[in-house]
Amino acid sequence: MNKVLIFGHKSPDTDSIMSSLIMADLEKKLSRDEEIIPCRLGNINKETAYALDYFKVDAPKFIDKIDEGTNVILVDHNEFSQSVDGIEKAKIIKVVDHHRIAADFNTPEPLFYMAEPVGCTATILYSIYKMNGFEITPTIAGLMLSAIISDTLLLKSPTTTIMDERALKDLADIAKIDINNYGLNMLKAGTDLSDYTAEQLINLDAKKVDVNGNSVIVAQVNTVDIDDVMKNKEELENVITQKISEQNLDLFMFVVTDILNSNSETIVLGKRTDIVEKGYNVKLEENSAFLPGVVSRKKQVLPVLQKNS
Amino acid sequence: MNKVLIFGHKSPDTDSIMSSLIMADLEKKLSRDEEIIPCRLGNINKETAYALDYFKVDAPKFIDKIDEGTNVILVDHNEFSQSVDGIEKAKIIKVVDHHRIAADFNTPEPLFYMAEPVGCTATILYSIYKMNGFEITPTIAGLMLSAIISDTLLLKSPTTTIMDERALKDLADIAKIDINNYGLNMLKAGTDLSDYTAEQLINLDAKKVDVNGNSVIVAQVNTVDIDDVMKNKEELENVITQKISEQNLDLFMFVVTDILNSNSETIVLGKRTDIVEKGYNVKLEENSAFLPGVVSRKKQVLPVLQKNS
Repeated sequence: MNKVLIFGHKSPDTDSIMSSLIMADLEKKLSRDEEIIPCRLGNINKETAYALDYFKVDAPKFIDKIDEGTNVILVDHNEFSQSVDGIEKAKIIKVVDHHRIAADFNTPEPLFYMAEPVGCTATILYSIYKMNGFEITPTIAGLMLSAIISDTLLLKSPTTTIMDERALKDLADIAKIDINNYGLNMLKAGTDLSDYTAEQLINLDAKKVDVNGNSVIVAQVNTVDIDDVMKNKEELENVITQKISEQNLDLFMFVVTDILNSNSETIVLGKRTDIVEKGYNVKLEENSAFLPGVVSRKKQVLPVLQKNS
Repeated sequence: MNKVLIFGHKSPDTDSIMSSLIMADLEKKLSRDEEIIPCRLGNINKETAYALDYFKVDAPKFIDKIDEGTNVILVDHNEFSQSVDGIEKAKIIKVVDHHRIAADFNTPEPLFYMAEPVGCTATILYSIYKMNGFEITPTIAGLMLSAIISDTLLLKSPTTTIMDERALKDLADIAKIDINNYGLNMLKAGTDLSDYTAEQLINLDAKKVDVNGNSVIVAQVNTVDIDDVMKNKEELENVITQKISEQNLDLFMFVVTDILNSNSETIVLGKRTDIVEKGYNVKLEENSAFLPGVVSRKKQVLPVLQKNS
C-alpha cells in the first residue's frame, strides 16, 4: 500500500499539528488505497497539548527526515527551509497552505495545490470538507476551531478573514464549544513559558525564511506578561547570538506578543538589524523595540522585512 | 476602481485564451468593486480562432507588459519566464493552473492559488463554478469544452483525468454540442499550418523552461500530416539555430505531433541534445527522432527533460 506522510512546518504550532490530523482524516475519505500517516516535525507546545487533551486526540507521529521518493502532503507551509529534512527528494502530491509561495518551493510535476489568503490552514481544510460534502465530526471540528483560535488569536489578529469567522462559528456549533471560554483557556495554556530554557523559548515557534537573499529567523512566543519573558533578556540574547553564529544568519528577530493587549516586544540581533529599524521606523535600544499593534508574524512582520531589505 | 488583469502564458494556446475569458466571468461574479480585464500575451492561433468564432466571443485584449504594482491573476501558467514582461513587480492575487510550480514562482504575500493535476485549466475553473454554485452559461460552457478538447486532444492525451472527462460531458450538455464532431473540426482548424513561416511555426506554441539550470524551449505544433510540416526541415533548423544563439539557449526541441495517430516527430538542436537522447533512449539522426506515443509536452516531454539533465 502506498504510504503518504502529512505534516506541517518545523517548530509546529497548533495549526500545523491540527492540520496534519485533519488532512489525514480528509485523505482517508478521498482515497482507499493509501496508508495515511499524520506527522509532526517537532515537539507539541503547551497550547496544542491543551487542545489535543481537551478533544482526546493523540499527537501525530514525530519524524525528522524522510526517504527519497516518499509521498508527502504539506500543510501550513510550502517553504522547503521550514520543512522536513529530505523534502527536496520527496514526491509532493498536495499542498494546503495559507502562506506566500516561497522562492525555494518548486515541483517537477503538476500537483494539487490549494492556498487561500485566510487566517488559518484549517479554514481552507474546512472549505474542502464543504466542497466534497463530507461530514465534519465534533472531534475534527474541535481540532479545526483550535487551529483557527490559535492562528487568529481568537479572531483578533489582522490576518483574520470573514472565512475564518464563518468557519469558527459553524465549527463551534458542531463541537458544542463556547469559543471565548475555551479559546482563552487554550491561548493561556500556551503562554505558560515558566519551565522553558532560553534556548527552548527561541526555538518554540521559529521560522527560518529567506528575505531577499538574507538568512533570517523570526521566532515568536505568546504571553500575557511581556516583562515576565523579558526578565531573562541577557540569556535570550546569548542563545540568539549563538544561533546566529551556528547557522550563519543575517538576522534573528525574537517577537514576544502580548495576546491580551495585542502588542509585541522584540529582541533583534544580527548584521542586518537595519531591516527592522527601517521597516518599523524605530531605533533599536539595547537590541529591542516595542511594536504597538503588531501580533502577526505573517502579516505584520515577514512582509515588512521583505519590503525593507 | 481597482483594475485586475487576467492572462495565460505567452504563445497562448486555446486553454490560455479561454481560461482568461472564463476566469474574468468568474471574477465578475465574485467581486463587484473591480474592473476585470481578460488579456492575452500573444496572437490567437487558428484552433482558438475557430472556437471563438463558433461561440461568437471576442478575443481577450493583447498586452505585452504591465506596470509595477498591477493586480494580476495568472491562469494556465505560473512560471515567470512564460508570463508577461514586468510580472516580477506585479501583485499576483490569484493563480489557477494545472502545471508544476516553477522554481522562479514566488510571492511576497499570501494569495489564492488553486492547482490540480488535471488535463486542463478550464477543468479547474469548472470546479470553482460548481464550488460556488454559479451557473455556467452555454457560451462559457463552449469556451470551457474547447479548452478541454484542445489540451486533452479529445481526451486522448495521457494528461486526461476523470475530472476532465466528467467536466467535458457536463459542458457538452450545457452547450448542446456534439463533442466528437465539433472537437475534430476545431483540432483540424489548428493544424492548418500552410500560411505560417518557419519562424512563426517555432513560436506558435513555444514554452521556455528552466531545466535544472539549462535554458530550454520546447515548441509544439499539431498536425494531421507530419511530412507536410517537415518538408521545410532545413528552414526550420535555420530559424531554431538562430533562436538558440539569440536567446543563448542550451536546448531547443521542436515537437510535431500527429493528433490522429498520437505520435511525434522532433527537431532537436543546441549543446544539450544529449538530454533528449538519454531521456528517450534514442540517437538523433540529422537532428531528429521519432517518438511513438508522445503527444503531451507536459506529461511526456518536460518531466523527461527534468529527470535526464
